[in-house]
Amino acid sequence: MKISARNILEGTVSDIRKGQIMAVIKLILPSGTAISSIITNESAERLGLKSGVKAYAIIKASSVIMGKEVASINISARNIIKGTVQKVKEGMIMAEIVLDIGGGNTITSTISDDSVKRMELKVGDEAYAIVKATSVMLGVS
Amino acid sequence: MKISARNILEGTVSDIRKGQIMAVIKLILPSGTAISSIITNESAERLGLKSGVKAYAIIKASSVIMGKEVASINISARNIIKGTVQKVKEGMIMAEIVLDIGGGNTITSTISDDSVKRMELKVGDEAYAIVKATSVMLGVS
Amino acid sequence: MKISARNILEGTVSDIRKGQIMAVIKLILPSGTAISSIITNESAERLGLKSGVKAYAIIKASSVIMGKEVASINISARNIIKGTVQKVKEGMIMAEIVLDIGGGNTITSTISDDSVKRMELKVGDEAYAIVKATSVMLGVS
Repeated sequence: MKISARNILEGTVSDIRKGQIMAVIKLILPSGTAISSIITNESAERLGLKSGVKAYAIIKASSVIMGKEVASINISARNIIKGTVQKVKEGMIMAEIVLDIGGGNTITSTISDDSVKRMELKVGDEAYAIVKATSVMLGVS
Repeated sequence: MKISARNILEGTVSDIRKGQIMAVIKLILPSGTAISSIITNESAERLGLKSGVKAYAIIKASSVIMGKEVASINISARNIIKGTVQKVKEGMIMAEIVLDIGGGNTITSTISDDSVKRMELKVGDEAYAIVKATSVMLGVS
Repeated sequence: MKISARNILEGTVSDIRKGQIMAVIKLILPSGTAISSIITNESAERLGLKSGVKAYAIIKASSVIMGKEVASINISARNIIKGTVQKVKEGMIMAEIVLDIGGGNTITSTISDDSVKRMELKVGDEAYAIVKATSVMLGVS
């Protein structure tokens, strides 16, 4: 399977909470970072997800917001992942940022070029990848 | 009504399942392809959605991931739609892919240019449009 | 806190409805415009959200669809916000639109350049920013 999503992070399911339609699933990466995903109960069952199962968090770069000096207590997004800016590639309208989040993993984000300039994002900066749990798909192999 | 979303697919509602807040709605395109959407119960009622009603699935190109050799059993996204790459337009940061999904319909996706290169996506390739149900809006006329 | 999301709109929480997993939260901007957000109950509690609390609606530009002649009765998105096009910046694949929504607020959207041409979007046009509630994060300071 090859998919265009820039962020495919392998981890282990550590928690599943199910509602009537939606389920919140937590994945722990080898580095200890937790990633939350909201999918339907039906998909969780179809994939056979349960605690201890290996799974991938799949995140499209356009779903990732970049932050600086972010406190998780202040923002609703379930995923606020600290890292170091590894690459900044600017275009005319859009730009691409690669964040090293440790444990050999990176998170790529496409944001507007104006935001890169406004935030003065540059290689070496401490920054955060902010991702709403509804933007995280899960995959199994 | 004119909207910027590149993908507006007409179909017929075939199934609605409601939770407390959210509802999963299935639409069948004339080609037989099913599209799932997650919207609020309130919106489903406001639009008068029920089995047999004509509706449109509205999907922003940036919400569409492209895949190759994808098995739906392996990924949580409810919408994994097979097609043939009809057009690849590359930019500096972003690229645009048009996928012919049959029945006269296409799905347009904006992905990063790096992904186009990594996946070696080209006209004529068999590929899949992958869309999370939470990224699908519904419209009625 | 600095974040890349182009749209950070300050308002006051006016309504919270909770399900088992997800909650719908309504924010009223000083101009009277309402913004709906769907987040998890857990995040709503973590942020201390309740009626009367000041909060920010945070919306990534790529989550905003642009519309013209849109009737809210016809589309599932909870947020359909009327405004006047203030700026159109075209790129090769993507374009950026700034919509003045009154009360000193703007909403920025990144859409494909093809959509700008197809919709003939230009400065001064009456247009709508369309945002699915699941794409709206909330923040508090």
